[in-house]
Amino acid sequence: MTRAIEFSSSLRFERRDLSPDENRRLFGPRAARHGHNYLLEVTVRGEPDPRTGMVMDLAELKAILEREIMRRFDHRDLNDDTPWFEKRVPTAENLALVIRDLLLEALPPGMLDRIRLQPDQDHWVEVVEEAADA
Amino acid sequence: MTRAIEFSSSLRFERRDLSPDENRRLFGPRAARHGHNYLLEVTVRGEPDPRTGMVMDLAELKAILEREIMRRFDHRDLNDDTPWFEKRVPTAENLALVIRDLLLEALPPGMLDRIRLQPDQDHWVEVVEEAADA
Amino acid sequence: MTRAIEFSSSLRFERRDLSPDENRRLFGPRAARHGHNYLLEVTVRGEPDPRTGMVMDLAELKAILEREIMRRFDHRDLNDDTPWFEKRVPTAENLALVIRDLLLEALPPGMLDRIRLQPDQDHWVEVVEEAADA
Amino acid sequence: MTRAIEFSSSLRFERRDLSPDENRRLFGPRAARHGHNYLLEVTVRGEPDPRTGMVMDLAELKAILEREIMRRFDHRDLNDDTPWFEKRVPTAENLALVIRDLLLEALPPGMLDRIRLQPDQDHWVEVVEEAADA
Amino acid sequence: MTRAIEFSSSLRFERRDLSPDENRRLFGPRAARHGHNYLLEVTVRGEPDPRTGMVMDLAELKAILEREIMRRFDHRDLNDDTPWFEKRVPTAENLALVIRDLLLEALPPGMLDRIRLQPDQDHWVEVVEEAADA
Amino acid sequence: MTRAIEFSSSLRFERRDLSPDENRRLFGPRAARHGHNYLLEVTVRGEPDPRTGMVMDLAELKAILEREIMRRFDHRDLNDDTPWFEKRVPTAENLALVIRDLLLEALPPGMLDRIRLQPDQDHWVEVVEEAADA
Repeated sequence: MTRAIEFSSSLRFERRDLSPDENRRLFGPRAARHGHNYLLEVTVRGEPDPRTGMVMDLAELKAILEREIMRRFDHRDLNDDTPWFEKRVPTAENLALVIRDLLLEALPPGMLDRIRLQPDQDHWVEVVEEAADA
Repeated sequence: MTRAIEFSSSLRFERRDLSPDENRRLFGPRAARHGHNYLLEVTVRGEPDPRTGMVMDLAELKAILEREIMRRFDHRDLNDDTPWFEKRVPTAENLALVIRDLLLEALPPGMLDRIRLQPDQDHWVEVVEEAADA
Repeated sequence: MTRAIEFSSSLRFERRDLSPDENRRLFGPRAARHGHNYLLEVTVRGEPDPRTGMVMDLAELKAILEREIMRRFDHRDLNDDTPWFEKRVPTAENLALVIRDLLLEALPPGMLDRIRLQPDQDHWVEVVEEAADA
Repeated sequence: MTRAIEFSSSLRFERRDLSPDENRRLFGPRAARHGHNYLLEVTVRGEPDPRTGMVMDLAELKAILEREIMRRFDHRDLNDDTPWFEKRVPTAENLALVIRDLLLEALPPGMLDRIRLQPDQDHWVEVVEEAADA
Repeated sequence: MTRAIEFSSSLRFERRDLSPDENRRLFGPRAARHGHNYLLEVTVRGEPDPRTGMVMDLAELKAILEREIMRRFDHRDLNDDTPWFEKRVPTAENLALVIRDLLLEALPPGMLDRIRLQPDQDHWVEVVEEAADA
Repeated sequence: MTRAIEFSSSLRFERRDLSPDENRRLFGPRAARHGHNYLLEVTVRGEPDPRTGMVMDLAELKAILEREIMRRFDHRDLNDDTPWFEKRVPTAENLALVIRDLLLEALPPGMLDRIRLQPDQDHWVEVVEEAADA
């Protein structure tokens, strides 16, 4: 079961151990500050609860995504307003791994199946969790 | 190989062993009658037939989906006009499991790979079949 | 300036002065109860307010659409749960005219430019308001 | 004839004559730095050239949009890296008016029909040019 | 009221009075044979019929589009299998004008409002009919 | 990490060992020349490079897709202008297998995860590579 949300952040690809020129050489135009509407799709797995017919209550998943993701990343600058990108560059790959870790904490154990994070129309990343018993 | 179709149904989340009030408490606004354009994506697997270059003839798959899915669910009320939701709530999860069972019957053995059922823009479910020899 | 929302309703094409058979002949499968995720796009016109740079505050427009449209149509049956379709069939055309009238009431005079109502992927209607001074 | 492009910018809604607190009260979360993938659709009008069958050569329009829009706004901060938002807030409305002015300059006279600028999935603005002879 | 259909054609930009080399210089890669899934949106205007609540019966419009457009252009080569591009290049503009003429013939007088023809994701053309009494 | 591109080709379903009539019987309307805007999504897998935070540099992947796919298939006729469909029919399945082979050659070993090729809106194919150590 998958739920999609959208958040809006600004960012720049910057390694703080490199000079502005070196960052520009390594990352090209993305070394300058720019922004994205990130589309995030979160998939949880499991059997439907026989009482409700749902793998997970949609309102509950919505509340978790609001609290864990929207409040932290929406209308934020990834480099300056969040603690995760001091030593890592906020590429789609690294941001997806941060989100994966936050959701592994927040969701019941074993429920996170995968996340898909799409910064723009023709580029996205996925992080897939192995099923414990697969 | 995947084919997408769309059908239009009405439904309400309702457990017949509960009172209207209890249903409302359990399911919120979805306890009232509403409707969806369901997007259904059906994926079959296999090697392309050397004669035709196709995993499965598209026209044949289209005919199966017309007969098994469109005729049963399009322009129907899931609760009142189909036999599957007397004891189950027509959540996306439960409807996907009903469709999976209908297609396992109708398709050649081992061909169904997965289905994806999307009731609205930011929410969907998937049912994945294990490959026999995987 | 346009804002898009989505609501989920059930409906049937039915004229109460006709028998079930006559309705079926006139409207085909749409005479049976079915449902849609309606996509509604509401466009307002005007010069941007020099103080805020916006034609209309997005939060204010959102609140109007929530109050006037979502509360009335989302998770409702158009025939049974709303007062507008006793003498009219809830076609996309008629529903769009009802929504137009509700928004002409609720928005500041002269601001409504047009609405676009889309019941499914390949079919939609538009109602365009003439500008007073055009 | 319409061509769509996408650019990625960061921005904050900020009037420099107001304190941070006043900006926050006026603009809410959008007073903080965030970002968008802007979708821009540029429509030119005219009769097809009998020699080429096109209203305007697509490659030429593409070059104009690259030079006038992409170089100025893509991978830029609208407030800090462009000269247009010192006295205006970079709302979608104001950004669309800036782009309209740049394209009126760059396109042959009378060709610009309208632009549509979409900062996110469910919100966009249009600026329509009157035809000289309408 | 608008209905969208999709058809699949092959084509090359070629003026028969020019040599292959001259065509290549004038039209670039599009002088070679290629193909599109054309998305066509046909908009008709009018008041809803009080009997049916529809501007035009959807099934009737569908039948006209099937007969006039799909049979002529779907799974066809625009240059070799249709009579319209002997002296004109099958640009989106010229194809839209051909379709406009076919629909003006086939639809009741005064009903065609506009057509929109989209050869690919980021490029499309529109032909708008003036209302007789506008 | 996935990147999407679009290319435009013409084609016909034709087995050269069969007569035109037999091809028409076997393949229906697709035996005639038609065309598609193919949407191709290429997914590579791996850990993000600690230096750049990316699984693979996007510019590098873009260059490979330009060289291996766009130059070979964009604005080409699959039957007449490419060497792969003399003995195979250019179905989506067979074209996807050709593209898979070209990318297995061009990408670093073990990086190709899967490709998804979509000839039109409601039909697509996927080719998935087994992970070496899975």
